[in-house]
Amino acid sequence: MRFHTRKWVKPEDLNANGTLFGGTLLAWIDEEAALYSIIQLENSKVVTKYMSEINFMSSANQGDIVEIGIEVVKFGRTSLVLKSEVRNKMTRETIITIDNIIMVNLGSDGKPAPHGKTKIEYVKDRLEQQNENGSGN
Amino acid sequence: MRFHTRKWVKPEDLNANGTLFGGTLLAWIDEEAALYSIIQLENSKVVTKYMSEINFMSSANQGDIVEIGIEVVKFGRTSLVLKSEVRNKMTRETIITIDNIIMVNLGSDGKPAPHGKTKIEYVKDRLEQQNENGSGN
Amino acid sequence: MRFHTRKWVKPEDLNANGTLFGGTLLAWIDEEAALYSIIQLENSKVVTKYMSEINFMSSANQGDIVEIGIEVVKFGRTSLVLKSEVRNKMTRETIITIDNIIMVNLGSDGKPAPHGKTKIEYVKDRLEQQNENGSGN
Amino acid sequence: MRFHTRKWVKPEDLNANGTLFGGTLLAWIDEEAALYSIIQLENSKVVTKYMSEINFMSSANQGDIVEIGIEVVKFGRTSLVLKSEVRNKMTRETIITIDNIIMVNLGSDGKPAPHGKTKIEYVKDRLEQQNENGSGN
Amino acid sequence: MRFHTRKWVKPEDLNANGTLFGGTLLAWIDEEAALYSIIQLENSKVVTKYMSEINFMSSANQGDIVEIGIEVVKFGRTSLVLKSEVRNKMTRETIITIDNIIMVNLGSDGKPAPHGKTKIEYVKDRLEQQNENGSGN
Amino acid sequence: MRFHTRKWVKPEDLNANGTLFGGTLLAWIDEEAALYSIIQLENSKVVTKYMSEINFMSSANQGDIVEIGIEVVKFGRTSLVLKSEVRNKMTRETIITIDNIIMVNLGSDGKPAPHGKTKIEYVKDRLEQQNENGSGN
Repeated sequence: MRFHTRKWVKPEDLNANGTLFGGTLLAWIDEEAALYSIIQLENSKVVTKYMSEINFMSSANQGDIVEIGIEVVKFGRTSLVLKSEVRNKMTRETIITIDNIIMVNLGSDGKPAPHGKTKIEYVKDRLEQQNENGSGN
Repeated sequence: MRFHTRKWVKPEDLNANGTLFGGTLLAWIDEEAALYSIIQLENSKVVTKYMSEINFMSSANQGDIVEIGIEVVKFGRTSLVLKSEVRNKMTRETIITIDNIIMVNLGSDGKPAPHGKTKIEYVKDRLEQQNENGSGN
Repeated sequence: MRFHTRKWVKPEDLNANGTLFGGTLLAWIDEEAALYSIIQLENSKVVTKYMSEINFMSSANQGDIVEIGIEVVKFGRTSLVLKSEVRNKMTRETIITIDNIIMVNLGSDGKPAPHGKTKIEYVKDRLEQQNENGSGN
Repeated sequence: MRFHTRKWVKPEDLNANGTLFGGTLLAWIDEEAALYSIIQLENSKVVTKYMSEINFMSSANQGDIVEIGIEVVKFGRTSLVLKSEVRNKMTRETIITIDNIIMVNLGSDGKPAPHGKTKIEYVKDRLEQQNENGSGN
Repeated sequence: MRFHTRKWVKPEDLNANGTLFGGTLLAWIDEEAALYSIIQLENSKVVTKYMSEINFMSSANQGDIVEIGIEVVKFGRTSLVLKSEVRNKMTRETIITIDNIIMVNLGSDGKPAPHGKTKIEYVKDRLEQQNENGSGN
Repeated sequence: MRFHTRKWVKPEDLNANGTLFGGTLLAWIDEEAALYSIIQLENSKVVTKYMSEINFMSSANQGDIVEIGIEVVKFGRTSLVLKSEVRNKMTRETIITIDNIIMVNLGSDGKPAPHGKTKIEYVKDRLEQQNENGSGN
């Protein structure tokens, strides 16, 4: 799993007990899943449809740094299934895991639409490809 | 299920597509589950331990009013199992459902502790009870 | 008075003294008054026009749960007059009271417009009514 | 009245109708009243006790600049009574007025305490005074 | 330099060390520079183009009051160059200084456009001027 | 330069013109610089001391995905000098660059303290090293 986005736990992220608010954590994961899907599917209209069960294995405190990992489980026809883990950056202890997050690709009519993707792509390769094809000239 | 807390969907609650951000919705549910548990267990140290699968059945738009319902599934020894539904207040259409949210009661040492509760209580009855017992004098 | 919406006082809601920020409290009341009016008047264009004097009777601390009550004082022709009380959920002590909050119903031209309502209605009854009338078919 | 603090109305400040959210406006006024009192009373433990009736005379739109004015009405023994007006910076049209905001000076025990002030002071003069008295050496 | 806007440092403004978050401070300065420019150039489409080096000379703590000063360095043809200092309101100690903030005036096509201004103007004078000219009738 | 953290530009991140608010962008960079330094210096008390000039080369719109890059320029005795670039994830166009961000390592007395680091380290290697050394057993 690749971990990209990192967050510094600040006072505004805490619950009333002074530990990382679970709702904030879920919001961070949902944002990461959405933007990961937008990048892969090259479509900005992507919505979260389903999350499998969520285990809160440990929490985090003010000042901790957490990183959010995303991995592709499967490319469906109109969907993309992701897996996520959030961990403490310094100790690599797991904070939360979600095995299946189903993101759905929408067409301009707001309905599920085929995305035509079957494997992970890197923006770098796409840009090189464009260049070779002479696009952008 | 009883629906208490209501939210007015404002621009700050939207995702980049202009619909209600799923992460904000999950944060609202988590807050409601936490405060419901704190009230029932009469202990402010309660944490979210687990959520069963989440179905995003429909979304909401700016200006919509959503209400968050919570129902008790089971009183465990150190836990409280809840169920939640979020729906559109005007149409009563369901936006999201979560069948099991396990909240854990913590002792002063931060470890799971028995909460001694076995059924739903109403603050009103507790206050009357206190009054009859002469407490508070 | 009926108390619906509940809030869990988190670090982001505190003033620099570490107690519930009065401005946050007023924002919560204003949101509740707005959504209550939208539900009753079945019109999303409703604005706050006036609030009578506000007494800050007690405050709240991080971790407290407060609930916001709204009651109808009067249905005007283009307005709805509400009354609000915010109290501590556990002790039922009053935090703030406002006797009159005047909400105005706006037409599509942004000017005050008659709302045609004279008494409190429940969404549940409206939906049943619709059903009996066969609307929605 | 002197107008100091200015705000640029951004998407996060809007209500669901797309105009400045009344609750945000009240939060801005409460913050300004608090910091004005802290400066005048030279005590950081100051709380809002009362606001007289509030008239929402006009609203503001995204991109507008509003400025918040504060004026002293009276120095009490443990209180400071303020008056506030918020207006559109470009047109000087009034958005809201509040005639009396009573702020109370608290002692270290959290109870109202005499503040010993009887008139407006400027920080500049205080610092010059300190300098002449040789304090700070 | 004239200091207008004041901020009360609240828990939501702190970094994970419990002192004022530098990013929040930069956001406050950028907002103040933007609204100052909008007022001077009488155009709401103004963007930040450049900031010269930034010295963080001291920090601020929860409960402190900081004030943000802005001064015009130069009126360019399509730009306005500002200077900013943020200081502690009570002690007047400097927290941060930025010597040059270049704001650019945009036309309706989103491109730099001449603003026609050469010196600081006060809204009060503009309104009086309008009145003498009989505009607004 | 390595790009880790990604942000999805949402309505709450916009300025009043509807493009990404420069202040929000600076806050994102400052958070990333802080957490990068905390990871490298293995000390949570790290503060931003200086930023060299900032060029706002392009902006971003709602729905865009931006990524924040950080690179080490130099390890000082008590400081760490970083370089940052923010770019649009899809097009790789640069949004902002900052050549020097000086972060200072603080001791428990809040004063600059030597950090003892001279080169970039990866948490993975540190954890393996610990394991080989038998620490944690």
